[in-house]
Amino acid sequence: MSKNHLKFPFIQEYKSLSEIFMDQKLARLGDSFVNFIFSLALSMRKGAPVGVKVKGGMLAEAFKKAGLRKFLPSRIDRHKQADAAEALLVYAWIKGVYSIFESVKVLAENENEIEGLKRLLLLAEEKIPFK
Amino acid sequence: MSKNHLKFPFIQEYKSLSEIFMDQKLARLGDSFVNFIFSLALSMRKGAPVGVKVKGGMLAEAFKKAGLRKFLPSRIDRHKQADAAEALLVYAWIKGVYSIFESVKVLAENENEIEGLKRLLLLAEEKIPFK
Repeated sequence: MSKNHLKFPFIQEYKSLSEIFMDQKLARLGDSFVNFIFSLALSMRKGAPVGVKVKGGMLAEAFKKAGLRKFLPSRIDRHKQADAAEALLVYAWIKGVYSIFESVKVLAENENEIEGLKRLLLLAEEKIPFK
Repeated sequence: MSKNHLKFPFIQEYKSLSEIFMDQKLARLGDSFVNFIFSLALSMRKGAPVGVKVKGGMLAEAFKKAGLRKFLPSRIDRHKQADAAEALLVYAWIKGVYSIFESVKVLAENENEIEGLKRLLLLAEEKIPFK
């Protein structure tokens, strides 16, 4: 595990997945993280650098497929599900669950982009340590 | 130096700064990189996570202040100067000039955001190895 969480003291400690999912500020940082790793993964698959913005619908779909919907209150819209996915993905990186390169590999290994995001979400969920 | 360039084989070898600056595809990947490290740096300074999109004007200004304008053909507009800055910054990370955390530190240490970007551009220019 890396010590990213010591490097980035602005990140609070979360007690549960639900807490992470509902943090709108963390989701905004997560958005920039996800666009970066997704762009790297797509660059790998295309064999040339690209830069993309990951669509919220794709993230919400991956979030649902990973079975994470149950940790959010009911009647949460797809936009908030996408936010929850972004928050989880960057938090796992900060906690050292995966490096940038490891996260890119998981995404790039999967032909289907939603499947790649789902697998990364599952890895994050499984490995994030809670006190 | 890290071995990021071995991890990301889609990145070509460049012979000069000018070649890097003119690569529009690399600039698109660079855009997502710069938004991510800038968001982390701003999060550090604010003490809470944020996500921002770095304005092209800011990048073009930092590029000019770093004295890099001379490596581009004349009559290149500010949009292309911002692209050149983005291409350089991500390429330096890929070549292992700085880690994510090191780049964030350079940005976060500077009160003035353009000054932080300028210092990171200068570090990249100084340390990128050419064959």
